[in-house]
Amino acid sequence: MSSIDKVLARIESNFESSLDRLFDLLKIKSISTDPEFAAPCREAADWLALELNSIGFEASVRDTAGHPMVVGHRKSGKPGPHVLFYGHYDVQPVDPLELWEQDPFEPKIKTREDGSKVIVARGSSDDKGQLMTFVEAARAYIEETGDLPIDVTILFEGEEESGSPSLEPFLKSHKEELSCDLALVCDTGMWDAETPAIAVMLRGMVGDEIIVKAASRDLHSGMYGGSAQNPNHIVAAIIAGLHDDNGKVTLPGFYDGVIELPEDVSKMWDGLGFSVEEFLGEVGLKYPRGENDRKPLEHLWSRPTVEVNGMWGGYQGAGSKTVIPAQAHAKFTFRLVGDQDPDKIQASFRDYVRSKVPADCSVDFIAKEGSPALRLDFKMPALEKGEIALKKEWGKDAALTGMGGSIPIVGDFKRMLGMDTLMIGYGLEDDQIHSPNEKYNLTSFHKGIRSWARVLDELSKN
Amino acid sequence: MSSIDKVLARIESNFESSLDRLFDLLKIKSISTDPEFAAPCREAADWLALELNSIGFEASVRDTAGHPMVVGHRKSGKPGPHVLFYGHYDVQPVDPLELWEQDPFEPKIKTREDGSKVIVARGSSDDKGQLMTFVEAARAYIEETGDLPIDVTILFEGEEESGSPSLEPFLKSHKEELSCDLALVCDTGMWDAETPAIAVMLRGMVGDEIIVKAASRDLHSGMYGGSAQNPNHIVAAIIAGLHDDNGKVTLPGFYDGVIELPEDVSKMWDGLGFSVEEFLGEVGLKYPRGENDRKPLEHLWSRPTVEVNGMWGGYQGAGSKTVIPAQAHAKFTFRLVGDQDPDKIQASFRDYVRSKVPADCSVDFIAKEGSPALRLDFKMPALEKGEIALKKEWGKDAALTGMGGSIPIVGDFKRMLGMDTLMIGYGLEDDQIHSPNEKYNLTSFHKGIRSWARVLDELSKN
Repeated sequence: MSSIDKVLARIESNFESSLDRLFDLLKIKSISTDPEFAAPCREAADWLALELNSIGFEASVRDTAGHPMVVGHRKSGKPGPHVLFYGHYDVQPVDPLELWEQDPFEPKIKTREDGSKVIVARGSSDDKGQLMTFVEAARAYIEETGDLPIDVTILFEGEEESGSPSLEPFLKSHKEELSCDLALVCDTGMWDAETPAIAVMLRGMVGDEIIVKAASRDLHSGMYGGSAQNPNHIVAAIIAGLHDDNGKVTLPGFYDGVIELPEDVSKMWDGLGFSVEEFLGEVGLKYPRGENDRKPLEHLWSRPTVEVNGMWGGYQGAGSKTVIPAQAHAKFTFRLVGDQDPDKIQASFRDYVRSKVPADCSVDFIAKEGSPALRLDFKMPALEKGEIALKKEWGKDAALTGMGGSIPIVGDFKRMLGMDTLMIGYGLEDDQIHSPNEKYNLTSFHKGIRSWARVLDELSKN
Repeated sequence: MSSIDKVLARIESNFESSLDRLFDLLKIKSISTDPEFAAPCREAADWLALELNSIGFEASVRDTAGHPMVVGHRKSGKPGPHVLFYGHYDVQPVDPLELWEQDPFEPKIKTREDGSKVIVARGSSDDKGQLMTFVEAARAYIEETGDLPIDVTILFEGEEESGSPSLEPFLKSHKEELSCDLALVCDTGMWDAETPAIAVMLRGMVGDEIIVKAASRDLHSGMYGGSAQNPNHIVAAIIAGLHDDNGKVTLPGFYDGVIELPEDVSKMWDGLGFSVEEFLGEVGLKYPRGENDRKPLEHLWSRPTVEVNGMWGGYQGAGSKTVIPAQAHAKFTFRLVGDQDPDKIQASFRDYVRSKVPADCSVDFIAKEGSPALRLDFKMPALEKGEIALKKEWGKDAALTGMGGSIPIVGDFKRMLGMDTLMIGYGLEDDQIHSPNEKYNLTSFHKGIRSWARVLDELSKN
């Protein structure tokens, strides 16, 4: 029995207790975006440091201006690349809570109609379930062989869902400690439940919130209606004016730096057999929106977008209130591709917004940190080793995909620490991350652990 | 000393206790639009019935499908018109509560920088303070002379701020009991703090709420952005498309039935010396919005409008959440003039909304009862008597004005009970009705009581 086969067998015998440990982590309410949950965020960090120490890492919690980091090291002293594994222990808010079929922080295994089992809880997929696949792979390796096959450093952050404000300063001040030969990130998805994937193209992001202020107080809409400015109308006009009839974003300079998809990538994507009807059908929709001269996978992976994540102004309660509110709000995120510059996009957006605000009204902005888009070299050696490992576990070629959501850490690793990143994850489209009833397939957790063991094994080979 | 002079003297000696009684009523949280406050609404009705009985009316609380009515009668047996006085004991919600400088239901008298005194509380102006001016006038009349100078019926409702759903059925089933020669309504304002006014032109209203539904659940805006429909964008486009660049409402047929202002009325309004800069300046604005070919008083009194009183969709909390919400909402009110038909306006609005909702999304509507606009005959005898009474009290001619807000009861009285209505009120532009820190000038309360005594006196004369 080869060393990797013994490790895989250990993963099997460990599996029940692996699940118990994941459940313990899922019970911690580590919502990073809401200051009310600062204590549970630290609790999750403490839990992870303890966990890593218990399997033989030298791990500790590191304070930041925001939620803490967890850093752990395990030197094998063997040749082969030194890898940095990254995951995040923070989770999205749970609202609307009334749409959850259970307490989001009381994880449950549910058997679905097709017999498959899923782990339901906030963070089960994004990203606690994913990061624990690596931790459990490392545990099995060390328990079975006494060591890891290569040097491994682990970095867990707690602010991924709130723009990672502390990450850049932390990477800067810990550059020596964290610079490795290669980064591994487990925060992405499979192509489908049977087909693994490695993400090679990530959209960037920049966000902004606007507060449009009109009258000094709420007004009676009968008494002032038709004369006083209504900030609801102003914000609506700002939102409505962002797209033209062809689905293009209207901001001046918005498409500067957008790169046309290389023909070979375009062909590979065509070959993936993606059905936008199925993709949208799963969430009750039918027709792709967006730029009407682009293919569906371009909309999702290689074209820039703007979405309004929230808007509000005036009365929202039961019944009616004849009011013109003093203020109205909206939260925007832009997804960026190619060489689009987050700062320039934000500046263009703000110029546009100001041009739509009447002279006797005003607008305040609340910025959200931006990060540019990222593409990987298709011929990177670690990429080939990852593909071999995944094929051994899943029996199918891994899809090389784009990602609609941004993972800013990958850009930071490249720019600040000079590392390429292998993005392998086991999430699925129907995981409902960021939504009520988030789940992670039991298979994703199980074969995810096995996959990481195989990746470590492949990376240790010459 | 004439009979009216004795009544006025009695009003002076009563005034402290009149204020105490008003404060007792203001302490009751009779918010009609929120079902949570049903008990305080009934408490206010009980309080008023007891009050009317204590001064010599035969009064009782009458159940409806919603909040109860209060009806009281006092027959003088004297000649002269039998009048029906109407007011409403319900009040607007108090949100945003954090902008109140005091508990909205703990009334306080405050002295302002110019030395004037105001009563601050939710409902102090709209409409508890106003309705109590009539009750206290009646009390003084009966206490001083043993009777009222004419027959008086009083009707108080508790659903004015939530569309008066029970009013029409109640008027229908109590037609005989409530049909009088003339109605008096105290729910309007003065021209300014020194100049009384009688409202002779009222805008109508119709409202609608829309719920636009897209995906079956909230989506990750990175994963689905650029492809899936975003209901925030749809609702924003619906709102933005309602007006053209000239401020005109774009709904087909919207201006059907709108009547041009008669030239004499237009001249009288020009003579009022209205300054839109001052009007808007008081609430921190400068430039009138609305149809750009119309005068400011037309915007406010004689032109139809649409306002979005509330809109919301997606994440509103602290920080950011990268979500495409499953639903977005907006609440609309249309102010109607001339012979505009509320039903036709609503139908046209709904056709428009449906035309803007993509094929794989849907929209639900929640209607708000409509009422057409109303104009009074400028030569009505009761109007002249009202003008005489007000001039005696205030020493100035009353302004004959339009009203931007709707008072549907006036239309109901005309159509269902065949009565004209004298609309006299003592509210002021800066009363902040429907807003935080609502107030009623102490002068309005004091001289308002005296004015009603004089109006009753004038109406009793041949």
